[in-house]
Amino acid sequence: MTGAVFVHAHALCESADVGAGTRVWAFAHVMKRAVIGRDCNIGDHAFVEAGARVGDRVTIKNQVMIWDGIEIADDVFIGPGVIFTNDLFPRSPRMQIAPVSARYSRPQNWLTKTRVGQGASIGAGCVILPGILIGAFGMIAAGAVVTRSVPEHALMMGSPARRAGWVCHCGSRLKTVASREFRCPACAEIFSETSDGECISLAKSS
Amino acid sequence: MTGAVFVHAHALCESADVGAGTRVWAFAHVMKRAVIGRDCNIGDHAFVEAGARVGDRVTIKNQVMIWDGIEIADDVFIGPGVIFTNDLFPRSPRMQIAPVSARYSRPQNWLTKTRVGQGASIGAGCVILPGILIGAFGMIAAGAVVTRSVPEHALMMGSPARRAGWVCHCGSRLKTVASREFRCPACAEIFSETSDGECISLAKSS
Amino acid sequence: MTGAVFVHAHALCESADVGAGTRVWAFAHVMKRAVIGRDCNIGDHAFVEAGARVGDRVTIKNQVMIWDGIEIADDVFIGPGVIFTNDLFPRSPRMQIAPVSARYSRPQNWLTKTRVGQGASIGAGCVILPGILIGAFGMIAAGAVVTRSVPEHALMMGSPARRAGWVCHCGSRLKTVASREFRCPACAEIFSETSDGECISLAKSS
Repeated sequence: MTGAVFVHAHALCESADVGAGTRVWAFAHVMKRAVIGRDCNIGDHAFVEAGARVGDRVTIKNQVMIWDGIEIADDVFIGPGVIFTNDLFPRSPRMQIAPVSARYSRPQNWLTKTRVGQGASIGAGCVILPGILIGAFGMIAAGAVVTRSVPEHALMMGSPARRAGWVCHCGSRLKTVASREFRCPACAEIFSETSDGECISLAKSS
Repeated sequence: MTGAVFVHAHALCESADVGAGTRVWAFAHVMKRAVIGRDCNIGDHAFVEAGARVGDRVTIKNQVMIWDGIEIADDVFIGPGVIFTNDLFPRSPRMQIAPVSARYSRPQNWLTKTRVGQGASIGAGCVILPGILIGAFGMIAAGAVVTRSVPEHALMMGSPARRAGWVCHCGSRLKTVASREFRCPACAEIFSETSDGECISLAKSS
Repeated sequence: MTGAVFVHAHALCESADVGAGTRVWAFAHVMKRAVIGRDCNIGDHAFVEAGARVGDRVTIKNQVMIWDGIEIADDVFIGPGVIFTNDLFPRSPRMQIAPVSARYSRPQNWLTKTRVGQGASIGAGCVILPGILIGAFGMIAAGAVVTRSVPEHALMMGSPARRAGWVCHCGSRLKTVASREFRCPACAEIFSETSDGECISLAKSS
């Protein structure tokens, strides 16, 4: 798929830092100093702000908003209408109250970063609070509001999002086969839950 | 209202299959091979993908996203920012993992369809999971996450959405007048709830 | 910051009633007869309908939708993807059912107004039901669905939104220092909760 960057005639791509093979669709806006990797797909009406960093082979569906301070690793899926955030208690920076003006005088005072690990999926319409780490290959169900960090391979649901299970690299929900042992029904990979509540891949079952 | 299709100067309508009297507003995008009926209204920043099917007299408010595999019957109201989905466990199709590449090699492997019945209403900001049937004249309250199919005339609320009452053809919430019998306070239509949990129109009360 | 109105080359600003120093960014649409004050910032893909009223120094982030009947006071922050609403039980106005046609024949029959008080903040992705008053300096957490009016200085969370605390003018969450007495950890302002459940500023503590 790799090749030149494709920018739709109705899109606005101002960044010089977009990798080969990436496509930017109609009415999307990628700002100057946004960094985007290779072979990504950026849907209609999406917005990537200056300071955001996106890896390779990332799927950014329509209307996604990725701000300064958000870092997306390789192979991530970001569903339609997902909203990231980077300010824990926003006020209008234009408000003429001294502590508010002071807070917004420098990004370090208010900008809270978020990172999405490799291969994770964020379902349609999720809202991601600031200061979150979404672990690699985690999956957030559509409509969730993510208020705490997400372990690797965790399936999260609801508002606020809670863990409802584990998922494989391929995205299938793992089945319990023994105490703290899980198996992917699609690709037969075996996982174990550690005493620390982490989900770790063991090996393929035969 | 019928007449030619109106396409705003800032909209992008690539489909040849849009009915007379339909209007497409600023920054909306209707793809080639999207099918849209007569006398619809498609708000700003809405998106209708190739393969989507929309009936007649449908109101599609701003920022609605309708994908391949979504079918909307006549007279439906889709509120601002409603998001449909068509993949139950998405991964970035660009990810180089064999089961993921295989899954996305053909739409039949992952595309899950949704249907919205005649005259239904979906409130602002709802997220509709894939594989759902929303029954005719159902009403989904704003902000709901719909994870299961919705009976005809059902009023659904919350995340996940649960049934909170019944609504008339006109949209008014029905009042209980006897065991399993309901009356519309606006148009006096009488409904009965069957033993199967369906809501059926009887006749106008006098 | 004051000066002429700035309208991005890819925006659409049709209103003659936009105050000096206000900026309208790419793919945003401000309709004719929308009223917007001075020194506002209107993000990409936002929409402000004819009949909406917005005060001075308001921050309207990307994709916000503000309809006829919505009134926003000065100094408000409206987070990305916030959706207002103005119809309590919507049907497609194009539907050919007599009570529906009658209802949509005049705005007075269906249009329900909402007001956001001075200095309030509405977090990312919130949905605001119609007929709500959001009190001055209230703060709505990201992802909330607001179904009832919000007291001044209230912090609201969840779906449906419930009060989870109080916030200062500056946006910081108040700490309890005595029964019904609260203090801002950032600016030391003291507040008291009245027997009516209101939160009132007293004075700066020493």
